[in-house]
Amino acid sequence: MLDPKPRVGFVGLGRMGLPMSRKLLEAGYPLTVYNRTAAKADALAAAGARVATRVGDLASEADIVCTCLDTTAASAKIFLGPDGVLTHGRPGTIAIDHGTIGPDLARRIAGSLGERGIEFLDAPVSGGPEGASQGTLTIMVGGAADTFDRALPMMRAYGRTIARMGAAGAGSLTKLVNQLLTFVHGAVAAESLALAERVGLDLAALGEVLAASFGQSRMLERTLGRVRTGDFEAGAALRLYSKDLGLVEQAATEAGARVPMLAAAEAVLNQALERGLSERDVAALVLMFRDPRPR
Amino acid sequence: MLDPKPRVGFVGLGRMGLPMSRKLLEAGYPLTVYNRTAAKADALAAAGARVATRVGDLASEADIVCTCLDTTAASAKIFLGPDGVLTHGRPGTIAIDHGTIGPDLARRIAGSLGERGIEFLDAPVSGGPEGASQGTLTIMVGGAADTFDRALPMMRAYGRTIARMGAAGAGSLTKLVNQLLTFVHGAVAAESLALAERVGLDLAALGEVLAASFGQSRMLERTLGRVRTGDFEAGAALRLYSKDLGLVEQAATEAGARVPMLAAAEAVLNQALERGLSERDVAALVLMFRDPRPR
Repeated sequence: MLDPKPRVGFVGLGRMGLPMSRKLLEAGYPLTVYNRTAAKADALAAAGARVATRVGDLASEADIVCTCLDTTAASAKIFLGPDGVLTHGRPGTIAIDHGTIGPDLARRIAGSLGERGIEFLDAPVSGGPEGASQGTLTIMVGGAADTFDRALPMMRAYGRTIARMGAAGAGSLTKLVNQLLTFVHGAVAAESLALAERVGLDLAALGEVLAASFGQSRMLERTLGRVRTGDFEAGAALRLYSKDLGLVEQAATEAGARVPMLAAAEAVLNQALERGLSERDVAALVLMFRDPRPR
Repeated sequence: MLDPKPRVGFVGLGRMGLPMSRKLLEAGYPLTVYNRTAAKADALAAAGARVATRVGDLASEADIVCTCLDTTAASAKIFLGPDGVLTHGRPGTIAIDHGTIGPDLARRIAGSLGERGIEFLDAPVSGGPEGASQGTLTIMVGGAADTFDRALPMMRAYGRTIARMGAAGAGSLTKLVNQLLTFVHGAVAAESLALAERVGLDLAALGEVLAASFGQSRMLERTLGRVRTGDFEAGAALRLYSKDLGLVEQAATEAGARVPMLAAAEAVLNQALERGLSERDVAALVLMFRDPRPR
């Protein structure tokens, strides 16, 4: 049975969207891309992608429209704005947001698009630019089961662990839980490694022992790797966590949940942003923790 | 070459020391045990261990004296007290503390014992009662390299990852870093899972997704397992973390290190102890986080 691959439109060619789009091309999907800064599409165009000059053009032609954007405002504009998917998408189109937008906006987009017969999945990812390049992202999906099933083969181009977590908003909620864990783990990793440096422990030996101990975490391994190489260029820039932790706080407030570790993490983050680390990787928190304690 | 196995004395038959002692018997080491509550030695006696009624008797006969005790005061007493290793141990004896005592006491014990020709290793463990029963503990060791080499075959009876981290105190410092990570990870795991319950996420599906995401940690997996089975009986009781986090704070203060995540963790711990959870497992923090947020 020859089932032609759906035409995919991808909006947002940043650190995540660019490698995700490349994986779609490699997997043979007919791809149209859009990026505010058009030059970022050049390499994809050379590899066979069409480049749209307006989101509306992309939305009217695609069977599946994906976005991966930094801000909730950008997502709202692409899906609900006048040049966006709501106005230009055809009934039956699947719209997928791979950014981190929070459950409320996810449900609002799902509701609005649904009235036009456009199906929506909130499908944030974990794995960073490396995971995107390797096609090993984890994708946390909220939305209708049949929509999920139809979109799944395409998401396999860049995802490995792909789970439907429930109705609209459930993917976003899952991602918020992940971000809370990720940032707290990253903050305590930086705090611990700076302490270990001060007391003279060998970080390589420490890493091996902790990997086999209850202190193990993926963020500790990632942070330690970057501390050892001195590479603090952003995989995920610290400023992005302001939005994400704010969304966690909003979800926790609405749910009446206690989140003291979140509060501590936000204080650490704000201090790091004041210290000028906003464009650096979360591992760069170690630079702040290396500063001596004020007396 | 027939090298007879050294005679081992083991002091402290609690949740950790009992299974560790059993592994020594299984590995064929001649074993003498001591416990303040003598009845805890009964099962080991039935399996072939001798039971000492005074620490001094055990210390005078053993080639290697191990302890695994809950408090720093108990360690100080066993090693340095009048009925202890300092007074009754022979030159050439190796003394090993598997508890969590902090680097200052470790160096003090090492110094005092060293003057009598008794070699000391601070060698705290990670892995809990399960790791002890299975012989898969991680052991973080501080002390002289040749002492480490001589003790290593015996420690393999209950340890799998066994690393010498440096001179006296280095094992303890490594354990403190591990405890900081472990407790913060445990606290944020409980906070996250209680939030996930409130917003209606399926915990089994959440666990699978997070295991493949940057939010992964061993404590998250452990906490999730206990939340799903409702088993909050102590592997490591919450009250023990008071001592451990206090030692981390002391080490951080001496080193001039900033530790805001530790401060948040201590606040969570104190709240849990006030709530009567001191004898429960660290996973029982979820019971506290299930309480609704005060308005």
